[in-house]
Amino acid sequence: PSEFISNAKDVMFQLKKLGKDDPRRVIHSLKVALAITLVSAFYYVNPLYNSFGSSAMWAVFTVIVVSEFSVGATLGKGLNRGFATFLAGAMGLGSYYMVDSITTGHIVEPMLLGTLIFLTTAGVTYFRFLPQIKARYDYGLLVFILTFCMVSVSSYRDREILDIALKRVTTILTGGLISIAVSILVYPVWAGGDLHNVESKNIEILGNFLEGFGGEYFGRLEGRESNKSSLQAYKSVLNSKQVEENLANFARWEPCHGPFKFRHPWQQYIKIGNLSRQCAYRIDALNGFLNSTKTPLEMRSKVQEPCMRMGTESGKALKELAVAIHKMVPPSGADPHIAKSKIAATNLRSIIKAGLWEDTTLLEVIPVLTVASLLVDVVSCTERLAESIQE
Amino acid sequence: PSEFISNAKDVMFQLKKLGKDDPRRVIHSLKVALAITLVSAFYYVNPLYNSFGSSAMWAVFTVIVVSEFSVGATLGKGLNRGFATFLAGAMGLGSYYMVDSITTGHIVEPMLLGTLIFLTTAGVTYFRFLPQIKARYDYGLLVFILTFCMVSVSSYRDREILDIALKRVTTILTGGLISIAVSILVYPVWAGGDLHNVESKNIEILGNFLEGFGGEYFGRLEGRESNKSSLQAYKSVLNSKQVEENLANFARWEPCHGPFKFRHPWQQYIKIGNLSRQCAYRIDALNGFLNSTKTPLEMRSKVQEPCMRMGTESGKALKELAVAIHKMVPPSGADPHIAKSKIAATNLRSIIKAGLWEDTTLLEVIPVLTVASLLVDVVSCTERLAESIQE
Repeated sequence: PSEFISNAKDVMFQLKKLGKDDPRRVIHSLKVALAITLVSAFYYVNPLYNSFGSSAMWAVFTVIVVSEFSVGATLGKGLNRGFATFLAGAMGLGSYYMVDSITTGHIVEPMLLGTLIFLTTAGVTYFRFLPQIKARYDYGLLVFILTFCMVSVSSYRDREILDIALKRVTTILTGGLISIAVSILVYPVWAGGDLHNVESKNIEILGNFLEGFGGEYFGRLEGRESNKSSLQAYKSVLNSKQVEENLANFARWEPCHGPFKFRHPWQQYIKIGNLSRQCAYRIDALNGFLNSTKTPLEMRSKVQEPCMRMGTESGKALKELAVAIHKMVPPSGADPHIAKSKIAATNLRSIIKAGLWEDTTLLEVIPVLTVASLLVDVVSCTERLAESIQE
Repeated sequence: PSEFISNAKDVMFQLKKLGKDDPRRVIHSLKVALAITLVSAFYYVNPLYNSFGSSAMWAVFTVIVVSEFSVGATLGKGLNRGFATFLAGAMGLGSYYMVDSITTGHIVEPMLLGTLIFLTTAGVTYFRFLPQIKARYDYGLLVFILTFCMVSVSSYRDREILDIALKRVTTILTGGLISIAVSILVYPVWAGGDLHNVESKNIEILGNFLEGFGGEYFGRLEGRESNKSSLQAYKSVLNSKQVEENLANFARWEPCHGPFKFRHPWQQYIKIGNLSRQCAYRIDALNGFLNSTKTPLEMRSKVQEPCMRMGTESGKALKELAVAIHKMVPPSGADPHIAKSKIAATNLRSIIKAGLWEDTTLLEVIPVLTVASLLVDVVSCTERLAESIQE
């Protein structure tokens, strides 16, 4: 039991932390609860219940399934669900009337309906594997299968099928509208804004690493431990692809909000994300050298000056880019830093040409330089993209 | 219209390709259709329909929602749904009877029920944000909210609530069992087996890159274009984290199958995956040097021999590791290759010490060497892990 208590404490602590990290999570929970309470009016208010009956269930159902964290996700699911229900309902009714008009045999009719259902389900399920469909319409196709099967199957038993279908579509639409309204009107969470922030945050993290890297590698050993762990923040950037793509998919559903128009070029963010990940892979390689302490410090000191400069300047440039993305201004603030880091790279080359190296193995020092020069490339690359997004 | 036709042709082509790439997709579609056809028997067979009535809808519903591509995903969803429905149903009934026993006022009762629903929904929705819960029980919690709301809301209107609840649980269980049975008995797709294959395939891809890299970098320029694009396969490894984690989550639900026991150490695969991604990041850095053609070939040729050796040997070692993972044998076949690549690294170091470099800038050559030596480290690291999985 004491173990149970400590586990429970642990979970409580984590729950608290989740709320502190992002208070919107708490708000989201309350929003969902609000939407459901609103929709249960279908049951509690007599005139509403009298006209919809147990179809009211579908409104509750829709609200619960459709309410997602961001506006984009909610809109996407809601629209998918709405269109798919409508289309599948119509097609299900159509196929029922078609089969019914051909035959009324109590063995032939279910067999025909069954064959139709089999073929439709197999086809649509297969269709869901298409990547571009999966990204945006997966949920819609699932609902399509669902509604189509339910309507055409239950039409075999329920003779008032048209009436039921109409009620259901109405309640589902109402449920969808309620969740979308709550999602947009009460403290909205915009996937587009999130994507925007994630992107600029990631670039800032990379910039922080580069700024700190020089000091770490060339030896101020005193405060080492604490600083090193703060540099590891860049690791979250390595695997950010999935998150960004999800956000971009959601963002496409969103109407204009704040500084973003309806057809904001979200695809550009994916490109920027790819470039910053390329940068992060290089940083991961750099990070590997932080941990190898083979190279003596006096060796390192020979190239310290230009390397430090390259690190801090490209770091500053990245941070300027992050600010530029964040404020949506042209990234001209980064230009002087990029220029300085290029000069440092040239200095470095001439130091090496001067040949201070004959006496030692330089295997361990050089990589730092080269990766740093690589980073300058990446920075200029990111710059190009940041400019292109301002168009 | 001609544009529409070309689009349609394009989609048809993609659909064909999806089937060719993985024929299990076609089989999956047929399996889902089969399960739905089976479950529609609830409607078509008179004795079944007479006892279940329109609750039969829930069986169809469950089959459609639960049927996933792999056995693990289907089992996970099915079990989540089953337990959540049962638990939430019981709690919903309980809260209804509790409220009902306190008061029967036509205003107080819905208000109390509404408050209960609000609190439960907000709490559970917030709970879903916990990462370890999200990974395995997200769907269960969604179903819990769903069922709890439906039962406690509709209990306000339906006085035969217990009867309805029992019928629903039975049909949902039947639906779940049918999908699980079809998923396991008809050409099962095991997430565990997939994870196993993905892991060894990824390491093989990295091995291929390293084997091909030497030849590409040190100049056989004739067949360059074609070969270069085949080397780019490694890029799929960079972002494999999400796929692997999903598969590992699914795999944990699966019973023993083929060579895998029930509690196979799937977590180890995640570790191996992380290590092979670290390796892939280095390879991405190497790949950057393939495209920079600044270094003259005669410069490169000075270190050609040991570098080629390091590339091919570490490539072979990775391939041996891939085979070892695939066949589940200890990875002893990789040892000689690792030893050879270490010797090559030592040779390289002495060549550099001998100082052939005074006359030129070596900025562009060195990185190759260092990243290659880094790779040797990663290989030995992977080796340790491959060994640990055999325990």
